[in-house]
Amino acid sequence: MSLLTVGTMAYDALETPFGKTDRILGGAATYIALSASYHVPNSNVVSVVGADFEQNHLDLLTSKGVNLKGVQIIEDGKTFFWSGKYHDDMNTRDTVDTQLNVLADFNPVVPEEFKDCRYLMLGNLLPSVQQQVLDQLPNRPKLVVLDTMNFWMDNCWDDLVEALKGVDVLTINDEEARQMSGEYSLVKGAKKIMKMGPKYLIIKKGEHGALLFHEDQIFSAPALPLEEVFDPTGAGDTFAGGFIGYIAKTDDISFENMKRAVIWGSAMASFTVEKFGTERIANLTTEEINARLEEFKNLIRVDIQLM
Amino acid sequence: MSLLTVGTMAYDALETPFGKTDRILGGAATYIALSASYHVPNSNVVSVVGADFEQNHLDLLTSKGVNLKGVQIIEDGKTFFWSGKYHDDMNTRDTVDTQLNVLADFNPVVPEEFKDCRYLMLGNLLPSVQQQVLDQLPNRPKLVVLDTMNFWMDNCWDDLVEALKGVDVLTINDEEARQMSGEYSLVKGAKKIMKMGPKYLIIKKGEHGALLFHEDQIFSAPALPLEEVFDPTGAGDTFAGGFIGYIAKTDDISFENMKRAVIWGSAMASFTVEKFGTERIANLTTEEINARLEEFKNLIRVDIQLM
Repeated sequence: MSLLTVGTMAYDALETPFGKTDRILGGAATYIALSASYHVPNSNVVSVVGADFEQNHLDLLTSKGVNLKGVQIIEDGKTFFWSGKYHDDMNTRDTVDTQLNVLADFNPVVPEEFKDCRYLMLGNLLPSVQQQVLDQLPNRPKLVVLDTMNFWMDNCWDDLVEALKGVDVLTINDEEARQMSGEYSLVKGAKKIMKMGPKYLIIKKGEHGALLFHEDQIFSAPALPLEEVFDPTGAGDTFAGGFIGYIAKTDDISFENMKRAVIWGSAMASFTVEKFGTERIANLTTEEINARLEEFKNLIRVDIQLM
Repeated sequence: MSLLTVGTMAYDALETPFGKTDRILGGAATYIALSASYHVPNSNVVSVVGADFEQNHLDLLTSKGVNLKGVQIIEDGKTFFWSGKYHDDMNTRDTVDTQLNVLADFNPVVPEEFKDCRYLMLGNLLPSVQQQVLDQLPNRPKLVVLDTMNFWMDNCWDDLVEALKGVDVLTINDEEARQMSGEYSLVKGAKKIMKMGPKYLIIKKGEHGALLFHEDQIFSAPALPLEEVFDPTGAGDTFAGGFIGYIAKTDDISFENMKRAVIWGSAMASFTVEKFGTERIANLTTEEINARLEEFKNLIRVDIQLM
């Protein structure tokens, strides 16, 4: 079923305790589209890049069935660039450099042929840009998922609140859920956030997994305990891509199916962190993915006995 | 099956964002024995208290089938006292006051009739005292579980390493696992720790649940997301009591059964944090416990689909 992803395409320079990279492919839309491509043979992306964006990176996405007709290439501009350094715990990081470049004036234009999308993934971006995309769609998609971050809560709160009114699923991390709701308890916080628009809330907890909330229901998904987290960049976007990709493939937005989609998202994210950037998520085999899903099955399988 | 618990019996004075208490009943052995009592109708405790320990607190334990013959009452001594204040996040706390009192000279004596125990739970105590108990048993129990904390790692490392050699299951929290192993990755850390003696390792992660490790197997148990954590005191001991109690009742130390026991421990701990001290864990009905276990079932039930 048709999937439209809106988000950044970027270059990142990363440093972790395991090494550092020069400019490598990154961006929310990149990770989302790559991760979703294992479910949906064709998907559409709306984004913006500069003239420096390499043809081989466009080719990579195209080879995965990603239609880039909605990607504006600004001939006299440079691609969004982010540089970060992770601390030893891999849970915290410092931003070394952010160059918005072409992202600063991004006016997303949804091509006509993308407008009837059934599933819409709004990757982490300025909330007003996310809103602009929603406003261009003549019919509301079956499911709208929005990812955001604390930076927008600090700087564009009103726009974010407005955008949330048109959203079905919100994905944020636990710190952000606490900031957004003003509640330390994630259960209390989720209730408040779901009153702001989203009927479903996914709280990403990194190495501690993820929680899916809907009405009074809660699903707790584990993260796969890993020997080594090599580079966490893109894990959240990869999660989102696995989630929305699975939903789009199955065309089923029941709570039971969303639980499966959360596990899929978690499994895909567990690959991303094994290497720098998109290296791992760009080249997975069915066998690798199924083996990983079996690991998740083993991790949580238990036959609970009552008294 | 016979269960022997060794640990502190104490008075605590607690302050949380929700209120404060005067001296209330506490101590690792207290929480463990109360939690285990829902599985084992009779269990034995070795501990020490002062003349100030109240008869009604002894009566409470006795009424739950706990044999207190191994509890030394020091007539000219005072019971171990701990006072703490929790921060708003409930995950961190300051110790306001610690009075070791009778605990300072505790020489545990295992009564003859307790010595053939099949299950031994060594609650958090000076490692040399835990060792003294192990040394008094003529036959090795079927399963020995030891709980410890960072304080003993800092101050009695060699004794702790020695005690661990005689232990089957070690329970510690994630920070302690990182300290003990020198590894940030819990998977790598668990492998190192299991080489020190314990064949099983349980890493308690508070609101993020618990991980059970054995050889190359990992089980991830969630914590129940709660509206309010009222007082975390005793949650780890309650977990241990639910775990060892379930194992003792079923007399089954397979990995599959330990997984069930971890869920039981988590369920019992989720009650303890709902009120101050032992108030909640001392008075549970079968209906309440079964309803809580059903919540855990719903929380993790998912039908994972492969590609």
